[in-house]
Amino acid sequence: MQGLAIILSGPSGVGKSTIVRQAGTQLANWCFSVSCTTRAPRPGEVDGQDYHFYTKERFEQEIAASSFLEWAEVHGNYYGTLRLPVQETIQSGGLMILDIDVQGARQIRNAIAGTAIEPSFVTVFVAPPSMTELERRLRGRGTETEESIQKRLKNARTELTALDEYQFCVVNDKLEQAASDFLAIVQAARCRTPLQKANLPLFD
Amino acid sequence: MQGLAIILSGPSGVGKSTIVRQAGTQLANWCFSVSCTTRAPRPGEVDGQDYHFYTKERFEQEIAASSFLEWAEVHGNYYGTLRLPVQETIQSGGLMILDIDVQGARQIRNAIAGTAIEPSFVTVFVAPPSMTELERRLRGRGTETEESIQKRLKNARTELTALDEYQFCVVNDKLEQAASDFLAIVQAARCRTPLQKANLPLFD
Repeated sequence: MQGLAIILSGPSGVGKSTIVRQAGTQLANWCFSVSCTTRAPRPGEVDGQDYHFYTKERFEQEIAASSFLEWAEVHGNYYGTLRLPVQETIQSGGLMILDIDVQGARQIRNAIAGTAIEPSFVTVFVAPPSMTELERRLRGRGTETEESIQKRLKNARTELTALDEYQFCVVNDKLEQAASDFLAIVQAARCRTPLQKANLPLFD
Repeated sequence: MQGLAIILSGPSGVGKSTIVRQAGTQLANWCFSVSCTTRAPRPGEVDGQDYHFYTKERFEQEIAASSFLEWAEVHGNYYGTLRLPVQETIQSGGLMILDIDVQGARQIRNAIAGTAIEPSFVTVFVAPPSMTELERRLRGRGTETEESIQKRLKNARTELTALDEYQFCVVNDKLEQAASDFLAIVQAARCRTPLQKANLPLFD
């Protein structure tokens, strides 16, 4: 059975992980992709769980070896997604969810284009019902400075311009509906013809 | 809200209408497409419900006026699907299900390619779990001659070669699972980015 990899993008504060946690109670055999980074672990962060913490040298070796589906340098630190765990999850019939920004998603789409695992990839953009509502949610957290809120809203507007690059858009208005839409996308993706053909002995 | 049109193909006896009837109990605002034909009504058939019964002259006028999404001549009779009711259903936010053979589905795909309603079309092939099981079901009806069974199985093998032309494949092994897959495909299709963009005021 061929599994799935779901690329999930959307503005900070839109509720991506809340949707996945809610939907995850109805899903078997799924996991989040764990990114690699060269930044230092923060207190409480566990290597291999929150991130794979790499040295700069090791990260650059893996770049040279084309080990990453996508990577980027942000504020002097590297971040990236290894190709192998995604491939292994797909080959074992599992479901891996990749919380990735729009630039990373672009790199992955290019990296998998025309390969055997391409039909296993689903791209989902989680959008707020409106920018007004996104602002309300960011303020509701009570943990953000005004400067941080304004920065996140500006980034959100930029990210929304990439919406057309995604196959699906889940609008997180009501959480129950958004989680249900996410589950439907997963179930429908398993019915894509190339996956069904790989999974079933139709011609006997 | 932009609606959906689902093109459903698959071998005779595979259970297309059973799946739709089962799934239909969970769906609002949906209908089957009613085909046009020049063949004579059979006892009990209602004009506008089982078929739109047209004269040959009227059918040929509609062909000339490009009124059909697809049409064909079979054993001296015309059969076709009008474009307007499908467009109207999509524009009103409804769901129309078109039970169409693989040749008709090809015509429709060509007719809508690049048009505004293309993202509203979903193509689903309903496949038997195996040819052995399809034969068992055809024999189980108890209404088919051996000649008819052999002809249907031959047609089924031909139709299965068109499977790759469909976005989704629902395998009708267990009816409950097939109906659930069909519902997931409908719900996921409503989350396609072009439809969500048309339906929601994301940018305010």
